[in-house]
Amino acid sequence: MTQHPRFIKIFDTTLRDGEQTPGVSLTLEDKIEIAQQLDKLGVDVIEAGFPSSSEGERKVVKAIKELGLNSQICALSRCTKKDIDTALDCDVDLIHTFIPSSHVQMKHAVNMTPEQVLVSTVESIQYIKDHGVKCEFSPMDATRTEAAFLHKICTAAQDAGMDSLNIPDTVGCMIPKTTFELFKDLKSFIKIPISVHCHNDFGLAVANSLAAVEAGADQIHVAVNGLGERAGNAALEEVATTLHVVYNYKTNINTRLLYSTSRIVSSLSGVSVQVNKAIVGENAFAHESGIHTRGVTEQPLTFEPISPELVGRTRKLVAGKLAGTRGVQAELNEIGIHPNDLQLTEILQRVKALGDKGKSVTDADLIAITSAVMGQVFGEEKIVDLCDMTVVTGLKAIPTASIRLAIDGKEYVGAETGVGPVDAVLKAIQKLTGNIEKIKLSEYRLEAITGGSNAVAEVIIKIEDEKGNIVSARATREDIVMASVEAMINGINKYLLKSRNQGRKQ
Amino acid sequence: MTQHPRFIKIFDTTLRDGEQTPGVSLTLEDKIEIAQQLDKLGVDVIEAGFPSSSEGERKVVKAIKELGLNSQICALSRCTKKDIDTALDCDVDLIHTFIPSSHVQMKHAVNMTPEQVLVSTVESIQYIKDHGVKCEFSPMDATRTEAAFLHKICTAAQDAGMDSLNIPDTVGCMIPKTTFELFKDLKSFIKIPISVHCHNDFGLAVANSLAAVEAGADQIHVAVNGLGERAGNAALEEVATTLHVVYNYKTNINTRLLYSTSRIVSSLSGVSVQVNKAIVGENAFAHESGIHTRGVTEQPLTFEPISPELVGRTRKLVAGKLAGTRGVQAELNEIGIHPNDLQLTEILQRVKALGDKGKSVTDADLIAITSAVMGQVFGEEKIVDLCDMTVVTGLKAIPTASIRLAIDGKEYVGAETGVGPVDAVLKAIQKLTGNIEKIKLSEYRLEAITGGSNAVAEVIIKIEDEKGNIVSARATREDIVMASVEAMINGINKYLLKSRNQGRKQ
Repeated sequence: MTQHPRFIKIFDTTLRDGEQTPGVSLTLEDKIEIAQQLDKLGVDVIEAGFPSSSEGERKVVKAIKELGLNSQICALSRCTKKDIDTALDCDVDLIHTFIPSSHVQMKHAVNMTPEQVLVSTVESIQYIKDHGVKCEFSPMDATRTEAAFLHKICTAAQDAGMDSLNIPDTVGCMIPKTTFELFKDLKSFIKIPISVHCHNDFGLAVANSLAAVEAGADQIHVAVNGLGERAGNAALEEVATTLHVVYNYKTNINTRLLYSTSRIVSSLSGVSVQVNKAIVGENAFAHESGIHTRGVTEQPLTFEPISPELVGRTRKLVAGKLAGTRGVQAELNEIGIHPNDLQLTEILQRVKALGDKGKSVTDADLIAITSAVMGQVFGEEKIVDLCDMTVVTGLKAIPTASIRLAIDGKEYVGAETGVGPVDAVLKAIQKLTGNIEKIKLSEYRLEAITGGSNAVAEVIIKIEDEKGNIVSARATREDIVMASVEAMINGINKYLLKSRNQGRKQ
Repeated sequence: MTQHPRFIKIFDTTLRDGEQTPGVSLTLEDKIEIAQQLDKLGVDVIEAGFPSSSEGERKVVKAIKELGLNSQICALSRCTKKDIDTALDCDVDLIHTFIPSSHVQMKHAVNMTPEQVLVSTVESIQYIKDHGVKCEFSPMDATRTEAAFLHKICTAAQDAGMDSLNIPDTVGCMIPKTTFELFKDLKSFIKIPISVHCHNDFGLAVANSLAAVEAGADQIHVAVNGLGERAGNAALEEVATTLHVVYNYKTNINTRLLYSTSRIVSSLSGVSVQVNKAIVGENAFAHESGIHTRGVTEQPLTFEPISPELVGRTRKLVAGKLAGTRGVQAELNEIGIHPNDLQLTEILQRVKALGDKGKSVTDADLIAITSAVMGQVFGEEKIVDLCDMTVVTGLKAIPTASIRLAIDGKEYVGAETGVGPVDAVLKAIQKLTGNIEKIKLSEYRLEAITGGSNAVAEVIIKIEDEKGNIVSARATREDIVMASVEAMINGINKYLLKSRNQGRKQ
């Protein structure tokens, strides 16, 4: 008889506690997109929102329920008839109802006596169950609740018919050891599934969630990218990966979708993920120092706990002051450049020198250094070249661009105005290139910029000819206007090279 | 007899493993500034760098040692005579020497047999001790090393005279339970201090470090903001705060300097801290939802595990779609605005409506709404006003902005250059407003633009004064440059109104 691995349920609260992240607001469309992704990812429960918090929120929860996803849809509700009615109205599978149980929160957050809290708990659970809906109950601030009262309220809730009990570490004050002990005790008298909901105030949300599971918890509340009140909740991607890889437990999560899920939530919530965030941070599978890059290029396991593909990612080697020969070589080989040993030593030295100046070494820097060392290894035949350009904007000034382009060696000059400097200069370029080919800008995209006003802007454009042929190009610069111009000119050159090559072949 | 609390040593590796964060390069001046701050903060050991990795690095370690700080200065070194000589040349207090001990790393990272590794270990430790310098030894990848060999190499290193043993969880694959067991075992035969060095690949670096301490470890390797290879090391701020607050242990860390230390390292390394990062993230002590803001305005302990001042911070209340009356009221009262109950209800409704549209509600938005509801209470009183502005950029042109501002009715004119037009104009504004207040742009965010080159750009900025007070503002325009200027001026007005109102109260 084979022993089946333990199965842990994943309850995602990105759309509820995650949206309580100060500064985050999601639209109906955002929430639907995230819910669909969570469903694909395989979470068991989606806590879609807190319907009684606003009219918009009620509509969102209703709309998500109507999507007919595989995940169960849950709504949050206080222990009041009004809140529960609003949740019931959304026709959800599960209502998550909560009430404070710690002394400080009973007194100062809701101004109720312990007896009133007990009565509300029992009445609310019964009211939900009377309507034939599943109920998960949370004694809020459970981890700071007096032990005897926690015992009492959990028993009362169990007797009232709750389907699962959730224990929230509302202010994140637990450590794995105390979490383990608390859940061991709960398991001794709670006979229904127990869930754990941790906050990350001391950076221990994931570890505490896992400790609860070790003690017997059946379900973990998580949020993508660890979003949530204050320092957030346990990060879905960390919890799921650790359960799969370290514990060898099963969940319904398809770990290969973890990275794309993280990107979607980061982009829609506007909360960026720090580069050194586990699993989904930009650097989680990046290597710079010589010892590490040498190791991973020979055998990835040397410096990686898991294969990046397992969570939907790829390895990244980065040049920098601590780089080694092997890492730089691998990085160059990947884009088809093969320097000899002497050239490689020289490239590495220049990379380290740039790093010692406090500069991070971008891909473009590495290529520029390599070109300088190896001669013009690769460069592009340019049909359209930018000779001169001036752009002016201001208060009460009409944004204006003047530009001189060389097209097939012949120079053209012109100017245009626009709603802003980027609009003006892109119109001017299209006007001049219109002399040889009718092509227009069909899409302009500027990636979100976060950081300082000198952060790098990445522009991606698409141009289209009269037959509907589309070519895309990109450019990355600190100057948004110059990045837009460069992307546009790259795109036009690519389009012209392509169409002329095809012309010759026909 | 009183029992003294346990004392844990803090070994900071921000300048060594932290600098191995892909993309991070620190200059000599950066590293000196960070070392001085770490010394003020009270870390016991500063690992200043890896002298043999580059000539610049060697100079840095030497320069930091020459500062004469209270913290001990440590240099990293492989187990080779050449590396150790370079480290000795820097005159450090302590050399941290390491060699792989796991099968996969011995074979693929250094291509050595276990016997060769043992010989190198013993010879290197003896060589360091012969020079009268303290030695901490790390069997790299200890947590994936075969138990018998780990036992053997640690015993050999102890016999060779190492002063402390460090156990690196090099690829971050441990969980607290296995970490505890490993350290319990080590404590049974290692008679000198033991250190723990964790990586955060599964988000467990802090929890594992604490589990090691529970099993008897004497020292923790940490990095500010959790910097380090891949997902980074255990975050100094999380480790120190948890040891003090939850364990009641002692360290030499002055927790009140944790936030300023985090800001300095984030700014010099260029690695931003995500808003939901524990202890030092922007939201760690921020509250938005109605239940939470109501609670903390009455009794902070309701939804905060510790007082923000303990780590050098202040509480922040944020308006948004989940906001409640009490939070918005407290936020407005703070800046001297006192709406009546009717007005407050209307303000709250408009805030929630904005939130339902997927907009985050900035400080400036709240003021605009309040002004609209209460009449010209406040809001439109502009301290800083834009009178004139011209911005020029181009090919081979230095992006330049000239600007005329009226500040308190007095006009100021000035110009600045930048890496692009936005950078130039925001610098020019800061230069002119610097006449009355030292405030700087701490974050610039441009929402992604998709559509044509005339699509609307939304800019959100944050400005910060010398005390760390942060104010946010937004603007939406078709012209990216004008949107940035408008957001900046909105933010500065908001900041000045707020600080002058608070000034009046005192």
